[in-house]
Amino acid sequence: SRSIRLAVIPGDGIGQEVVAQGLKVLSAALPQDVKLETRSYDLGARRWHATGETLPDADLESLKNHDAILLGAIGDPSVPSGVLERGLLLKLRFAFDHYVNLRPSKLFPNTATPLAGRPDIDFVVVREGTEGPYVGNGGTLRAGTPAEVATEVSLNTAYGVERVVRDAYERADARPRKKLTLVHKNNVLVHAGHLWKNIFDRVGQEYPEVTTDYLHVDAATIFFVTQPERFDVIVTDNLFGDILTDLAAAVTGGIGLAASGNINPSGAFPSMFEPVHGSAPDIAGTGKADPTATVLSVALLLSHLGYADEAARVEAAVAADLAERDAAAPRTTDEIGDALAARVSG
Amino acid sequence: SRSIRLAVIPGDGIGQEVVAQGLKVLSAALPQDVKLETRSYDLGARRWHATGETLPDADLESLKNHDAILLGAIGDPSVPSGVLERGLLLKLRFAFDHYVNLRPSKLFPNTATPLAGRPDIDFVVVREGTEGPYVGNGGTLRAGTPAEVATEVSLNTAYGVERVVRDAYERADARPRKKLTLVHKNNVLVHAGHLWKNIFDRVGQEYPEVTTDYLHVDAATIFFVTQPERFDVIVTDNLFGDILTDLAAAVTGGIGLAASGNINPSGAFPSMFEPVHGSAPDIAGTGKADPTATVLSVALLLSHLGYADEAARVEAAVAADLAERDAAAPRTTDEIGDALAARVSG
Ligand SMILES: CC(C)[C@H](C(=O)O)[C@@H](O)C(=O)O
Ligand SMILES: CC(C)[C@H](C(=O)O)[C@@H](O)C(=O)O
Repeated sequence: SRSIRLAVIPGDGIGQEVVAQGLKVLSAALPQDVKLETRSYDLGARRWHATGETLPDADLESLKNHDAILLGAIGDPSVPSGVLERGLLLKLRFAFDHYVNLRPSKLFPNTATPLAGRPDIDFVVVREGTEGPYVGNGGTLRAGTPAEVATEVSLNTAYGVERVVRDAYERADARPRKKLTLVHKNNVLVHAGHLWKNIFDRVGQEYPEVTTDYLHVDAATIFFVTQPERFDVIVTDNLFGDILTDLAAAVTGGIGLAASGNINPSGAFPSMFEPVHGSAPDIAGTGKADPTATVLSVALLLSHLGYADEAARVEAAVAADLAERDAAAPRTTDEIGDALAARVSG
Repeated sequence: SRSIRLAVIPGDGIGQEVVAQGLKVLSAALPQDVKLETRSYDLGARRWHATGETLPDADLESLKNHDAILLGAIGDPSVPSGVLERGLLLKLRFAFDHYVNLRPSKLFPNTATPLAGRPDIDFVVVREGTEGPYVGNGGTLRAGTPAEVATEVSLNTAYGVERVVRDAYERADARPRKKLTLVHKNNVLVHAGHLWKNIFDRVGQEYPEVTTDYLHVDAATIFFVTQPERFDVIVTDNLFGDILTDLAAAVTGGIGLAASGNINPSGAFPSMFEPVHGSAPDIAGTGKADPTATVLSVALLLSHLGYADEAARVEAAVAADLAERDAAAPRTTDEIGDALAARVSG
């Protein structure tokens, strides 16, 4: 009989609440003969306050013994900015070589968008996850003095860029529209930008059916709001991907619906699935958190583990649920989770 | 009698056409006793193709002998990406220490916005112009091989950050709402981010009437489309400012209306005023280019040179013209320029 060893990091704030719904839906979606073994890890603000630890080696080692990780949300205003991001979230992405940060954006019917005319939005951003300005390769000289200097180094390698670009071409090639857009800023960041562009062009020769496009990141933000239907698959660096996917979430139903997968395609390390939103301490415990982004992240998880039909069922359940939502009659986190689980089992 | 020595860099594509309208309106706006002396510089794609030069020292020296520079647009697909940007546009900004890159965004009545509900948008971005990831401090190792590594270094100094933050506080303090938002990514780019945040907080103590806020750049893009009315003055680094101001232009009537000033507040070097849009070679020569962004840049120029009333008249002329525009009856570049000049003189 088959089994999934799932590590769960509920984290802070609404993380706990949304992860509970994700697990509910995951159980409902899995075939009867698949055994789901979960192990929960106490990581995040509480742990840091209690022990000063963000992600000890023992936890990191133990997390490796899993097929995937489901993460809720990390962060609290009581923790200095950067401590949990660099010490936990990014540490996981880097340690587990999550070089494909996958973030689909789709404007489902009956969901809110700030855009007039409700354009037809259905694209996926393949954000590089292990390089660029996120490497943590910076420093500070003469901190706190008028002569202070602070640097941040963006590191980009042919090795790192080629593998994520190749992954993006594969995804584009598998979609009906077969279009891939590279987003960078190669007119200013000429070294990193030309590395990306050259590899993008070279690998593209192996995918003759994929139509390609290049946009500077500033221009890309314009098209996200004026012509988002032009995008199919986007590949971009770590920082630009961070910015673009929040904007993408904003125009497609909000951050409450945005899912993500931090994927190590080789399978050498467990991939990690998490909603794009944060821990939202202001609504934690109120039952107002929308678990949909986590449930859609569970769909990405299922798909990654080879349960394509089950992933499709979860997505269909979300689409059907969204179609019937009534803004005047909001449901609790738990009610939405129950409704989605019921649809998936039914 | 007074005089303005203005250097004009029409540049490429529609640059020529929009600058002509800008000059028309400038002449109409200036008091009779002010003598306007212009000198035109042939810089951009044509010059580069002809001589291989982007901005020779002799031109740079000669440009210094002016009170301000009006620039149209630089760039052409026939020139490799980065050559004119780094060799001309950014060289000017750095050589003339344009540390305040001022970019106002206002949603005028009767203009197009992709946002439903036409929110009340009226903010200004103070983008740092001489530091950050734009310094050109990167390199490439083993170019073109599978072992290639490319870096980009973001350089940030207390000197450079404090002066632009202070400028932004001054601007916020002078506006009715007195609100200043710092945008950075200090949870990931911790060195540069903390330098910015610490200086922002410290200088803020000198401006007790200014309300402050901090947003990560990804979150800021969300608010640009869901709640742009929350912004008054924004201060941010060179790259984030580049991205945010294109998005701001997109939600406030489009890039055809977005003005900018590259300002050296000390007056040691001439400040440079330019529309945010590019050279748009696809519509060059067709008379379809909207000169409004250039005309609004002329208003910033007037204001910078101390002609506050004249700047206000130009802005009022633009507002009045926009209010009467009929999308079904588009006018040519020249017709719009004439109409604006007529309003300003009348
Ligand atoms: C919390 C932060 C480190 C993270 C990022 O910048 O990647 C978040 O914004 C995201 O997009 O997942
Ligand atoms: C053309 C380019 C160098 C420039 C920039 O990145 O600053 C442009 O995008 C701008 O915003 O003025």
